[in-house]
Amino acid sequence: MCHSDLHSIKNEWNNAMYPMVPGHEIAGVVTEVGKNVTKFKAGDRVGVGCMVNSCQSCDRCDEGFENHCRGIIFTYNSVDRDGTVTYGGYSSNVVVHERFVVRFPDAMPLDQGAPLLCAGITVYSPMKYHGLNVPGKHVGVLGLGGLGHVAVKFAKAFGMKVTVISTSPAKKQEALERLGADAFIVSKSADEMKAAVATMDGIINTVSANMSIAPYMGLLKPNGKMIMVGLPVKPLEIPPFDLIMGNKTLAGSCIGGMRDTQEMIDVAAKHGVTADIEVVGADYVNTAMERLAKADVRYRFVIDIGNTLKSSE
Amino acid sequence: MCHSDLHSIKNEWNNAMYPMVPGHEIAGVVTEVGKNVTKFKAGDRVGVGCMVNSCQSCDRCDEGFENHCRGIIFTYNSVDRDGTVTYGGYSSNVVVHERFVVRFPDAMPLDQGAPLLCAGITVYSPMKYHGLNVPGKHVGVLGLGGLGHVAVKFAKAFGMKVTVISTSPAKKQEALERLGADAFIVSKSADEMKAAVATMDGIINTVSANMSIAPYMGLLKPNGKMIMVGLPVKPLEIPPFDLIMGNKTLAGSCIGGMRDTQEMIDVAAKHGVTADIEVVGADYVNTAMERLAKADVRYRFVIDIGNTLKSSE
Repeated sequence: MCHSDLHSIKNEWNNAMYPMVPGHEIAGVVTEVGKNVTKFKAGDRVGVGCMVNSCQSCDRCDEGFENHCRGIIFTYNSVDRDGTVTYGGYSSNVVVHERFVVRFPDAMPLDQGAPLLCAGITVYSPMKYHGLNVPGKHVGVLGLGGLGHVAVKFAKAFGMKVTVISTSPAKKQEALERLGADAFIVSKSADEMKAAVATMDGIINTVSANMSIAPYMGLLKPNGKMIMVGLPVKPLEIPPFDLIMGNKTLAGSCIGGMRDTQEMIDVAAKHGVTADIEVVGADYVNTAMERLAKADVRYRFVIDIGNTLKSSE
Repeated sequence: MCHSDLHSIKNEWNNAMYPMVPGHEIAGVVTEVGKNVTKFKAGDRVGVGCMVNSCQSCDRCDEGFENHCRGIIFTYNSVDRDGTVTYGGYSSNVVVHERFVVRFPDAMPLDQGAPLLCAGITVYSPMKYHGLNVPGKHVGVLGLGGLGHVAVKFAKAFGMKVTVISTSPAKKQEALERLGADAFIVSKSADEMKAAVATMDGIINTVSANMSIAPYMGLLKPNGKMIMVGLPVKPLEIPPFDLIMGNKTLAGSCIGGMRDTQEMIDVAAKHGVTADIEVVGADYVNTAMERLAKADVRYRFVIDIGNTLKSSE
């Protein structure tokens, strides 16, 4: 998933006077730093995620939740406070305030770590804040794509029991054998769904297609939580009874603050959590877009803008 | 609100072979105890809420959440484990396992405390478990009736800022002057709603009429939570975007366990939180039902079954 659909609504927007340069899961090497920079030096391996600025002075920023700042500036196609338009990672270089740069641990490859800067924090943050990072607890991961496969890896790193829930039986082997999930439910199977009723402490819902969530809410134990990180267009419908009986929670989560993003990539490096990727050259982008539309990628394309990844990694 | 509508669905049900004797906010004096009873003795002032039994052996019961036990037996019109039908508080006496009896603190009047056994725990529990009991935080109370007026009192006892949100401007004076709310919003006023956008840490939603919740979700700050304790028939609709932006939560809450119910009434007694009631005799019940249908009561009728309240209180 890409949160660019959010940007057009919440952010002051480049009104097409400038070309759009996308890309918000950026990894690379620092080439130069400004005179007031203290966190980084030339040569450091770093990453930039969904945002490159915020007001840096409100309560939300002070609490580490720049992602909730009303003055958030997204990584591309936003109008920054100096009036310039932000250009994303499909660039030969980017200039970013150090607050919005995360350090890549030595163990984290640039290419496999880049997608964590959006996909990783998107699933890590709700697992942290909704108590779905506790060994032995049972989490369902609804949808196995760019977000879902990272959610499975983090959940296993936390020592949780993980069940992947998918419409596609073809993903079962992948989920169990390669990603290490403990169980797999084909959501179209009434029997499999029924057997899992009231077994899960939480569900990370990565699905962006319009959907009926009520059957999945039934998989939750009392006090269970479904966290939306996918973004269907149509409103979710939930009978109040289904929330009230068993004190269920339906919540949403949008990326995370910079402190949590650094923490996420440190935890990922420690546990070997990376995104599964296919590295392509810039000249492959149009083909990659066509394959992406057909969900023909496991699970993220990474564009090697500088044509340096094979040599540096 | 009365949770009896829940009972018919989740509980094995008296199939009309027996008369229904309702009543699940019961307060009275112990007349006799069984030989294994250790918590109570004759003469103790006690209360019984929505449930009178559970399996008493599952994880949920062990954790103090008998309200989530699959073997829960409601206070009236349920078939108990011995095969008898439970009769509620419209009785001259009831026999209840001591686990499901709460002790009334000396400072808590029987009549004004009785409604707390359902209405009180229904609003206290979500405030406790969703962090809406913190001095200085801002909670909205949506709907000012049997549940809402108790929610206002608990929130003020916790030291919170309280805003009542109602369709009825006529309730403003009541909310501010008599119940001590800090602010009042007429939900039909676009200006008043707009001025309150993103100001609340949480909302206790006590409304049982079908409703659109999206405008109220907009009143929440980032990480804000709306807790449903009312029970509209139609599904709630929420655009995923409205949950994801600002990490909002929509949750439900259903009464509480026995430990929390005792804690609730102890806290209520300490802070002088009671229900506003009108005491009536058993011969007034039909009239009371007619007035209840017209919302003509502030806020709960209490039936003086034994015709003793005026003398004992």
